[in-house]
Order: sequence, then structure tokens, then C-alpha cells
Amino acid sequence: MNKGLCIWLMGLSASGKTTLARLLAQELDRRGIQVEVLDGDQVRSNLSQDLGFTRSDRETNLRRIGLVTRLLVRHGAVVVVAAICPYKNIRQELRGEIGELVEVYLDCPLEVCIRRDPKGLYRRALAGEIGHFTGLDDPFEVPSRPEILIRTDQENPQDSLHRILAVLEARRILPAPSDLPLP
Amino acid sequence: MNKGLCIWLMGLSASGKTTLARLLAQELDRRGIQVEVLDGDQVRSNLSQDLGFTRSDRETNLRRIGLVTRLLVRHGAVVVVAAICPYKNIRQELRGEIGELVEVYLDCPLEVCIRRDPKGLYRRALAGEIGHFTGLDDPFEVPSRPEILIRTDQENPQDSLHRILAVLEARRILPAPSDLPLP
Repeated sequence: MNKGLCIWLMGLSASGKTTLARLLAQELDRRGIQVEVLDGDQVRSNLSQDLGFTRSDRETNLRRIGLVTRLLVRHGAVVVVAAICPYKNIRQELRGEIGELVEVYLDCPLEVCIRRDPKGLYRRALAGEIGHFTGLDDPFEVPSRPEILIRTDQENPQDSLHRILAVLEARRILPAPSDLPLP
Repeated sequence: MNKGLCIWLMGLSASGKTTLARLLAQELDRRGIQVEVLDGDQVRSNLSQDLGFTRSDRETNLRRIGLVTRLLVRHGAVVVVAAICPYKNIRQELRGEIGELVEVYLDCPLEVCIRRDPKGLYRRALAGEIGHFTGLDDPFEVPSRPEILIRTDQENPQDSLHRILAVLEARRILPAPSDLPLP
């Protein structure tokens, strides 16, 4: 069986999580790695329809993602999670729960996220139509020691992808270049 | 990678689902099969704290179990679910969703379940303290074509276990006796 692992892409809305998750999943799939993407928005629509965006509801949602991830990792899957994950206490909990976890913090200035706003959510939040919005009226507690820190306003997604792949090689999830047979 | 499969033990409260799930998981584990038990009561306490026992809430709970099961099965796990699963429409949905599914119906007369009542739930339901109780004021629609039908009031759990193992051998999840090397 493969060795399971979770790669958690965390950061503000519009920081680039879903884009990078797709790129990463495609590349792992191409290399024959069993991968599962858990996207925050999708999870909300099936496991957490009942939950809103208060701190307590967000925590419950993240714990549910954590539970599913733990089960999958235990059975050898590589799980790519794309979810904001704004609170320190929950990140600590998840690390304890999941075990094999690579935290990837997609750092992107709030003003850049507001300019990108692909789903129009910031516009609605700034107009007062959505409350508890991370980065505006709900906090994002910056990860203090992520395994990978990506400035998505400065680095292109292909470069970010290769930095994540390098960590997976170091952890022997992917064969390191030196493991490959000589030509 | 292993081939994934779900074995869903369904039936009234106190029909013997948890007992048989434990026996089965122990035996699969002993044989080196990656197994995950999803027990209805446990799932309620982590994925579905928000849900009650109306038909709609039960359906949502079963769909969540189905989603987690599908993900695990896709990654090669053998998943043993122990949950009442009282509605035909949801069983059909689950079959479509999970794909590799073995329905095991634990048939046990209601009066026997009421007599067993290990958690005192029937007593409380009959006293009017719990509503929407399956078999009393909420229906259990009998599975029409389960892969395995077990009369748990007539058969001992060890015999039931061996009947399930035989199906897993036929499906090549476990090596069939004829696959084993000759001594």
C-alpha cells in the first residue's frame, strides 16, 4: 500500500487554493499516485450543508474535513485539501488528528484577493451581504510554521507546484530523482 | 492496491450490527485486510451532530456515510458500515454511489430486539421519550434483495461471519480456499 499523506492548502479566499489543488492532483495522477481532492466549497455542499460561517461552524466543518482526511490517509491515499483553515487551534488539532500533514500556506495580500475576487464574494461581503468573511470581519490567523510558504501574488502556480513536489519527494511519497534508475 | 468494497450491515436497532461488525473487522484485520468500521452511532457523534431522526435527517446522515464510504472504497479500503439504513430509496442511491457494495440484512423480529434492548432505547421509545424510532413510529423498509440475509435470532454470529467471509472470497477480496497454495 502507498503511504498516505495530507497536503493542506490554506489561505484567504481567492489566494489560489483551488487552482493549485487541481494542478497538484493532475500531476500526482499522471505519476500514478492515488489522490483525492477535498475542496472546502464542495465539502460544504455535501458533508456540511447545515453549517454557516460562525467560528463554531467553521471549526465543525474543518473537523469533519479532518476526520475524512484521517480515514483516507490511514488507507494510503494522498489527500489534497483546499480550505481556508483560518484558526491556529484547529490547525494544531488537525496535525494531531491526521498525523502525516504538510501545511502549505498560500500567502497573498488581502487587497490582491479583493482585486481577483473570482466568485464576487469579497464584493458581496464588502457590501454587507455576507458576514463572518475571513480577512474582513473574521480573522485569518497566519500559520507560524507552515512546511511550505507560497506568495501566490509573486510566484506562478507551476513553480509552486514544483516546490510541493520536492517536499513529497523528500518524504518519499514520490520517488526522488536520485531514486530513479539510471538511463 | 487492494480492491475496495463496502459491507453494509443493516437492520433494526439491537439486531446485532455492531457485534457482527466487530467480529468481521477483527477477522479481516487478522488476515491483513485494510478495514475501516463506520458505526452509525459514532458517525452521528462526529459527522452528524447536527442531525436528528426525522426521515430527512436520517437520509442526510446516510448520504454522509455513503460519501465517506465511497471515498474510502475508491482508495482500496474494505469498509464495514453498521447502520440501520431503513429506506429503500437511500439504499438504491448508496448502491449507485458506492458501486462495490454488499448488503447484509440482519433480520430479527421486533419483539426480540425489544427484549434485547442493550442500550435501553426501545424502553425509552415505548415510554414516549424518543420519537421517530425505527420499527416503532418510523418505518424499516425490508431490503428486497440483500446479498446476505441473516436471521440473527436463529444463527450465531460466528456462523454469520463465515457466510460473509464466503462472499468476500467469491468476490476475490479474500483469497478463496482454492487460491491458497497446496501444503
